[in-house]
Formats: sequence, structure tokens, C-alpha cells
Amino acid sequence: MLANHYEQMLQGKSVIRELSEFATARGKEIGYENVFDYSLGNPSVPVPEAVTETMIKLLREEEPVALHGYSPSLGIPEVRRKVAASLEKRFGVPYAEEDIFMTSGAAGAIAHALRAVTEPGDEVLTFAPCFSEYFPYVNGTGARLRVVPANTETFQINFAAFEEMLSEKTAAVLINTPNNPSGIVYSTPTIQRLAEMLRKKSGEYGHTIYLISDEPYREIVFAGTDSPFVSEFYENTLMCYSFSKSLSFPGERIGYVAVNPACQDAAKIVQMCGQISRETGHNCPASLIQLAVAEHLELTSDLSVYETNKNILYRELTSLGFSCVEPGGTFYIFPKAPLEDAVEFCARGRKYDLILVPGDGFGCPGHFRMAYCIDTEKVERSLTALRRFVKEEGYFA
Amino acid sequence: MLANHYEQMLQGKSVIRELSEFATARGKEIGYENVFDYSLGNPSVPVPEAVTETMIKLLREEEPVALHGYSPSLGIPEVRRKVAASLEKRFGVPYAEEDIFMTSGAAGAIAHALRAVTEPGDEVLTFAPCFSEYFPYVNGTGARLRVVPANTETFQINFAAFEEMLSEKTAAVLINTPNNPSGIVYSTPTIQRLAEMLRKKSGEYGHTIYLISDEPYREIVFAGTDSPFVSEFYENTLMCYSFSKSLSFPGERIGYVAVNPACQDAAKIVQMCGQISRETGHNCPASLIQLAVAEHLELTSDLSVYETNKNILYRELTSLGFSCVEPGGTFYIFPKAPLEDAVEFCARGRKYDLILVPGDGFGCPGHFRMAYCIDTEKVERSLTALRRFVKEEGYFA
Repeated sequence: MLANHYEQMLQGKSVIRELSEFATARGKEIGYENVFDYSLGNPSVPVPEAVTETMIKLLREEEPVALHGYSPSLGIPEVRRKVAASLEKRFGVPYAEEDIFMTSGAAGAIAHALRAVTEPGDEVLTFAPCFSEYFPYVNGTGARLRVVPANTETFQINFAAFEEMLSEKTAAVLINTPNNPSGIVYSTPTIQRLAEMLRKKSGEYGHTIYLISDEPYREIVFAGTDSPFVSEFYENTLMCYSFSKSLSFPGERIGYVAVNPACQDAAKIVQMCGQISRETGHNCPASLIQLAVAEHLELTSDLSVYETNKNILYRELTSLGFSCVEPGGTFYIFPKAPLEDAVEFCARGRKYDLILVPGDGFGCPGHFRMAYCIDTEKVERSLTALRRFVKEEGYFA
Repeated sequence: MLANHYEQMLQGKSVIRELSEFATARGKEIGYENVFDYSLGNPSVPVPEAVTETMIKLLREEEPVALHGYSPSLGIPEVRRKVAASLEKRFGVPYAEEDIFMTSGAAGAIAHALRAVTEPGDEVLTFAPCFSEYFPYVNGTGARLRVVPANTETFQINFAAFEEMLSEKTAAVLINTPNNPSGIVYSTPTIQRLAEMLRKKSGEYGHTIYLISDEPYREIVFAGTDSPFVSEFYENTLMCYSFSKSLSFPGERIGYVAVNPACQDAAKIVQMCGQISRETGHNCPASLIQLAVAEHLELTSDLSVYETNKNILYRELTSLGFSCVEPGGTFYIFPKAPLEDAVEFCARGRKYDLILVPGDGFGCPGHFRMAYCIDTEKVERSLTALRRFVKEEGYFA
């Protein structure tokens, strides 16, 4: 018999997949360049040439048995050391090799971090709007994910709702800043207040509440945005990183968990991640990829296009009448839909070849996400479609 | 609080790790070339140059955003198609793209296959001697692994013991041929009899018993050895493959699950593997690595050294008096220890700089494993140490 749990999961509809299928089919009719596909968070700028050259150099010059040999399950020691040193240098938190666990992207990082600090029956709290894949990551541990309603005025944390939902069952809090889908970066006061509340409640409940900080968009922060380093503010932070966005490398599946060394059990948590891998068959990202990123930890792709696109879209959307919190980073914007039903609004957008994602899947109905990791030229062309959409449907009239 | 289950796992001692640490430390004293380290199953021959050249070509010529972009969670469609076509061509089983799920090596493959076809409380049967990591793979699903005692005369399946242990709780049977640690390849009569028994018992119990066939050593089979393709004999086979040994590529973490298309739920099982990945954060092997192996599915490293080494060791061990079943493949040999306590025997071997692994961890005490994926020159030098060991300790005297 098949595992009932996973068989049931097949019933779930993926809204983004459906949208993507529509975009592909429509692209075949009118040319994909004419479909304004804002559905996918796939980076649109190339990996830096230096990373490509490093991979070629490794392939040309390293002894192949060593280069492609098994790496230890926590990651290649030299890679872990370099990641720790770079974090310490950039953010002042004294990470060491034993605090770093190399993973297959942020997905692997979050899944391991959650398994390390939760027990079946525990609760994990996160904040709307949030990435829909948080549900399977948490479900897989046997814990339960509860989503704190959004503060739709600012998309900072809704502390009143948060405090109400915290309880003795809360094992961990999962945040994502800069945020997918809102594009908002949690401010220093937000992180300070979060840390204070976690300390207070940890004391009250007599157990540590871990903070799992999902930071794949850390390097995509726009001019003038306050972007605090979360781990600096709360000792029991498990930071989950991915090079998918910073190096335009999502298919290569590389990231890490960095456990704040001030967390009492830092080294133990990293070792536990190794044990988790033994059960899930995760066992490390590819050696070549680990070695390549370790040479370029402080390099990014040319990420400026995302800020350019954000400026164009934010200006146009607000001038058309959309209510919208201005993104401080990422390549997403999350305006309020002019219909109560954002699913219906996005469906109507298809008539104008605008592929928009309703906020319902992010725990925030009534909003929609645009992923503007596309060419600026296409963003500009999409404005005409956007204007027609608003005018012909009579929004903001 | 930390997850108790994974914290407890940290208590487990790894015999192989201890041996490896001893070998490294001893290597620092006398030079690693003088330590006869037979402990690790890390391939000793390089990846074929053609694979390296393909990776360089992909890096030089492919559009980087596409090359390094997200791949679908089941694997890159073209890669899955090529894997299926190659299997059909070589083995006559008509696999198609939808039967293939790309994984991070055999570990990822086995962990996914087990999760797809077991429920908590189910039993999975395997045969001694077996790879020790089968325990965490099965434990992680909530099922229970039971090990059928070895037939130490041949290391083929002990069918009497197997039949006794089969029950309504048996959800899956996990085999590994060619076998780590015995080096034995299950013969056609063995696989036929296994298939017959699984069909008979599936009928009796009213549910399918899946066969999970772990085949990372499929390409390392020695002259004259009967090496049947397991899936051909039993329709409900989930074959787990890794390129780690055939291409000397273990650090790059690449393999697949191939579900026999005659299995009623083949395509569904593959889709379920994708859902499992969503929970564990597995999400595909690296794109570059998938694309590289897809160009060389029928190529292997020069694997002949393993047969050369096997011949030397088998001849020497048997002539010294060891009782030993001759390996038909892999790079392992699994002789009977001349002491009842193989742990003690292996500990004594260290005095002669021989690093041997006791069979206890493989569910087969009284035997020891030698991994002869080392240079032939070193194998030859080790014979003197082996002779001294036997003589000075008075074995077979």
C-alpha cells in the first residue's frame, strides 16, 4: 500500500503551477515575450562570471577523486570555516565552523532547522504573508504551523496577534526577512521587539523558543532600507540561507544553517542536523558547488535590476490607485487587490496577459504578488497591459 | 527544547568513523601510504574525463540563467527521459520519464522510496549482511527494519529465515545487490525465488509488498558473474541507483529512483516522491550535475582495478586460511574472522596498520569487511602485513 499521507498530498492544487502552465500555453500562442509572467521567483540575472570560472578551474586543476569524493555529512570543513568567517566579518557574530551546516538550499536548511528543535505536537508560529512551502516543512516534523495574521498596513509583525498565539506549545518562530511575498524587510525595532518577546516568553514557559530566520533574500535590499542582521538580536537563532537568489544559482541547491554560537546548544544542533540527514537521505549539497560558492561568499550577481523594476512597478501601481506597501528588498511586490476576491482579480488579469499570483496561498487573501525578476524592458511593456486592465475592468473609477 | 529523537542519535558510536580517525592519526605518524586503510567505500579511480569535459562545456556554453535555474522537483525532464531510455535499451524494461525521480545519490533514493510505500508501524525486511544506514532510512519513516539472518555459506538469501519473518506487517523488502559488504551478487535463481515469494505473500496478505532494490554497485560486476536486472523479475520494484561508484562521483550526490512501469502505481509513486521532498527539503540534485550525468549514462570510470584487487586479496586470504565467499562485484570482500569476536580481531589488526571493519555493524558478527577501493600497489604491500598479522597472532596455526 502507498503511504496515505503523501498520496493525499497529491490532491493539493498548486496555484503557481497552474498559472505557470497557463503562461507557457499562452506563450505558445502569442510568443512568451508577450506574456507578462510575474508568477515565478526564478532569478533573471546570470551567475557572476567569477563563479563559473572557479568551477571550471576546480574541474581543470583539482585531483578528481578528491574533488568529487564524499564530503562529511555536515559539509566540507573548509567550506564551513569560510562561511563562518565571512559571517563574522560582515555581521560581527562570532560564528565558527561547528556552527555551520551545509544544505541543499534554503528548503533543506529550514527543514533541518525545524526538525532539530521541534517535537510532534509542538507548534511553530509564522507571520502572514508567508511562503506556502512552510506548511510541508513543518508538517514533516509532526509539529503544527500556525500563521499569525498580517499587519497589512506595514507588513511588519502584528505583535498583538502574535502575543495572543504564543503558548507553551510554541517551540519555534519562523520568520522570512526580506519577505516573500511582501518584499518588506523587518526593521530594527521589529526585530528588537520580537527578540524581547521571545526572551520573555521563553522565561515564562521555561523552555527556549528558537527563532528560525529564513534569509534567502538577504542580499537584495534596496537603498535606504533598514536591514538588521537577525541573529545579532536573538541568541537562539537558526539562520537559514541560500545562494539561490544572491548568486542566481537556485538549481544548484546550495545553502546553510548557521546557528548563533551564543545559542547554548549551537554545536549540538549542527550535529543533530547531520543525524536528520541520515534519516531523510539529504546528505550534503554537491561537492563542486560547495567549493565554488566558498570562493565567492561576498560576491553577488548584479542585483540592481530588481530595484529598478520595483521602482517602475511601485510608481505605476500607486499612480493607478493600488494600495501598496513599498518593498524594501527581494523581487516581489504585494499590492492590495481592488476586488475582495484576489483569486478572481488574478483570473481577470489573464485576459491582459498579466500573470499575477493571489495572496491566498501566502495566508493573506485580498492581495496579489508580482515577482518582478524579469527584464526591465518587459516590465515597461507590461505597464500598458496593466493600465488597460484597470481601465477596462473599471477599478478605482 | 531540542528534538529528543535526534539528540539521542548523537549517542550512537560510528565504528567506521573511529577507524577512519585512527587511520588518519596513524597516517600522520608513519605516512598515510603506510596505513592499509580498508575502511572506506570511497572510489579510488577518477571520474571519466568526458564527464569533466561535459561539465566545462555546459558552464562555457549554456545560458547561465537556464543552466542554474530551478529544476522541477522530480528532476529535469530531459534528464529523466534519458535515464528511462537508457534503462530500457540496456535492460529491456520499458521505463518512461514519468517512472524516474532524480535524487541526491542512493541515500536520497532509498529514503524517498521507503517513505512512499510504508506507513508508521509497518515492517521492512532486509538481509544480513546489510549497509548500516538502512536503519536510519527506515526509522525516519516510522516503520521498523528487521534483518533476516545471513546465509553465511553463500551470502545469497536465507529463504527459510525470510519466509518465517514475512508477515502482514511487511510493507517492503529492501535488497542490495551487488552487496555491500559481502561483494556477492544475487543470482538469477535467487531473484526468481524472491519474486515468487513476494507475489505469493502479496496475494496472501492482500496488499503489495514492494521491492526496494539498492543498486549503486550495478556496474561493478566481475567476469563470469550472473547479474540479473532485478526489476525485470518483479513488477513492484523501486530501483535505487547512484552514480557515486560507477562514475566515481560520490560527493556530487546524484542518483535516481526508477519505478518499474509494470507497477500499477508507478507514476503516482514518483509524484509522491516529489511530495516527500517538499517535507524533507530534499528538492532535487544540482542542475549542473544532473545535466552532466545525463550525457554519460552508459559510461563508467575504469573500474577494472577493483577486480584486480579482489583477485589478489581473495587468493591471499584463502591461501592464508581465511574462509571467504568470493565476491562477484563491488569493491568489498567479507571474510570470516578467525576469532569469534570480529571486533577484537579488527582491533588487533591495527597493530599491523591494517584497518578492517567488523561485520557487527552490518548485522553479521564474526566477519569483517575490507573495502579494496585503493591502489593495487597498496593492496600488494598490505599482503606482507596481512601475513605477519596471521602468523604472529597464531591464526590458522
